[in-house]
Amino acid sequence: MKTLTVALPGRAYDIRIERGLLEKAGEAVREACPKAKRLFVVTDSNVLPLYLGRVADSLKKAGFQVICHSFAAGEKAKCAENLVALWEKMMAAGLTRTDGVVALGGGVVGDLAGFAAATILRGVDYIQIPTTLLAQVDSSVGGKVAIDLQAGKNLAGAFWQPKLVLMDPDTLDTLTDATFSGGMAEVIKYGCIWDKNFFDFLAARPSRAQIMADIEHVLYTCCDVKRQVVEEDERDTGKRMLLNFGHTVGHAFELAGHYTEWSHGEAVAAGMCVAARLGVALGVTDTAVPQDILNVAASLGLPTHIDCGWETMVQAVGLDKKRTGDDITMILLERIGKAKPVKMKKDVLLEHLNAIYGR
Amino acid sequence: MKTLTVALPGRAYDIRIERGLLEKAGEAVREACPKAKRLFVVTDSNVLPLYLGRVADSLKKAGFQVICHSFAAGEKAKCAENLVALWEKMMAAGLTRTDGVVALGGGVVGDLAGFAAATILRGVDYIQIPTTLLAQVDSSVGGKVAIDLQAGKNLAGAFWQPKLVLMDPDTLDTLTDATFSGGMAEVIKYGCIWDKNFFDFLAARPSRAQIMADIEHVLYTCCDVKRQVVEEDERDTGKRMLLNFGHTVGHAFELAGHYTEWSHGEAVAAGMCVAARLGVALGVTDTAVPQDILNVAASLGLPTHIDCGWETMVQAVGLDKKRTGDDITMILLERIGKAKPVKMKKDVLLEHLNAIYGR
Repeated sequence: MKTLTVALPGRAYDIRIERGLLEKAGEAVREACPKAKRLFVVTDSNVLPLYLGRVADSLKKAGFQVICHSFAAGEKAKCAENLVALWEKMMAAGLTRTDGVVALGGGVVGDLAGFAAATILRGVDYIQIPTTLLAQVDSSVGGKVAIDLQAGKNLAGAFWQPKLVLMDPDTLDTLTDATFSGGMAEVIKYGCIWDKNFFDFLAARPSRAQIMADIEHVLYTCCDVKRQVVEEDERDTGKRMLLNFGHTVGHAFELAGHYTEWSHGEAVAAGMCVAARLGVALGVTDTAVPQDILNVAASLGLPTHIDCGWETMVQAVGLDKKRTGDDITMILLERIGKAKPVKMKKDVLLEHLNAIYGR
Repeated sequence: MKTLTVALPGRAYDIRIERGLLEKAGEAVREACPKAKRLFVVTDSNVLPLYLGRVADSLKKAGFQVICHSFAAGEKAKCAENLVALWEKMMAAGLTRTDGVVALGGGVVGDLAGFAAATILRGVDYIQIPTTLLAQVDSSVGGKVAIDLQAGKNLAGAFWQPKLVLMDPDTLDTLTDATFSGGMAEVIKYGCIWDKNFFDFLAARPSRAQIMADIEHVLYTCCDVKRQVVEEDERDTGKRMLLNFGHTVGHAFELAGHYTEWSHGEAVAAGMCVAARLGVALGVTDTAVPQDILNVAASLGLPTHIDCGWETMVQAVGLDKKRTGDDITMILLERIGKAKPVKMKKDVLLEHLNAIYGR
């Protein structure tokens, strides 16, 4: 069992990583939320049959009144309609300001339930039980919650820190290979931007089985990197931008595939490959870096190139919410383990992308 | 001209109170938001013809690109549908994280625009230009923003502090007597809970004209009381509850009138009268207090009694979001100028209300 404490000003919360933790969820939540009477559990149609029964039983045993709501699995669930529906259901269930919301599932469930928790009654306690690799390494630290708008992904949201995060690595066994690999894209990212040793550790374990043999270390290391970044920059105005490595171009790929063809992780993997080449073209990145990233990504079954119409790329760069005015900040690597933000004009970025991208 | 600085941890903002300030809005906003290029102005159908032109001109002169959106006036505008519409319009207008949202209007506009500002792109700068007495004395300090749900008022929202508040007392001249009086209910409240001298000052000015002759002092005093309360308790877990004096029962009156028959201020005025009598019944409140409040409220044209079906009262007390579990905290006065929270069982409260209310 590993426990990581994320210490933000005025609040601190634990991330607990342990095989079989789902069955002990109740006692852990009771400790974190001693006053809560009701827990509103949000999950989706994939996770419900696998884990809801076990978690709900454990929560009930700990004395909570449990109300569950499930959405059809998929990114489309993260919409305004579902947010409003959640708000109304939470009030209909009699939720009070001392009760809590539990997100049981992947990033979509976490984002939607987290945004609802951040805003219902102007904010109630939020407990995350992430069941995918992506959610465990990416969504558990940082407090970013959001829904998608018609205009794009994650455009309406909040910063809302969880009260507790419970990770049971056993839940990863039910992921498809594609979903597992998608999560690995973010895992690789932490190595790229922060920790060369961890990158080498991953490069030496080119299979799902090898990663799973050390999964607690992998989860802990990723969350610990993100913790360090977030503790320095909770509101995402500086260092936290480093976490966007691969994400600006990745968003273009997600957009090109209408958020269905490519998973977030696949898009980020290919986006990191483009960002590495962009960095070399700009003279920022060591020339060996693109191939190193490509090798690790490919070894774990991730795409290293995605076709994307040029207009989609332009649109994605224009709409990306990390831009400020006409400039855009791209995260580039100096070398593996060391990232830095580089501000540039959007048209300069597009010129370089055009050259790299061969259009 | 009066300026009040509200200092919250890590942020501080100014409230500027000055006749004719609308025409200088541009320079004031430019100073507060030096990086913003676009301002998204939210207003309503009452305020648009009166003040939008003047404000938009001033903002444009200061170099801002101004996008306006107006809703049909009324509490019904504070709904989830309008929030989602605002989010989409903000993105369609190309709003970025360094741009800002301006609320020009009363409390409804401020709550809706403020919640949109708190959540679009996970939060952008928010400038308030309140044009009603209620909004000036109540919504300008504290950062509470929200929309109504079908289940009740202000149930989904956030804490989001403005970057700047501009109050032009001249805008009060266009209010109806009823709307002006509604605002005076909250003004009286500040005297009741915090400042006996101010209460006496109000009691000595039993007309709108007399209040308006000293309006800058009135606005400043109210905002200053609220500032002191909020600085001690930004997240509304302690002292800030004092501001709810008259509001729990007031909500019942609003609910009984379907939020249309009685304004918020009227409901609060009658709610304060009930809360004063409740305090006397419980032995907490000095016996002279109910009549003192009743006199001041009546002198300013406010209702001191509202008929409300008993079921509505029960429902309002049960649904009020200040309750924690089965208990409810009522704000009672010890004497004029000194309030305190008193926690009680909901059924005990209902028993006393039943006795007072004569049912």
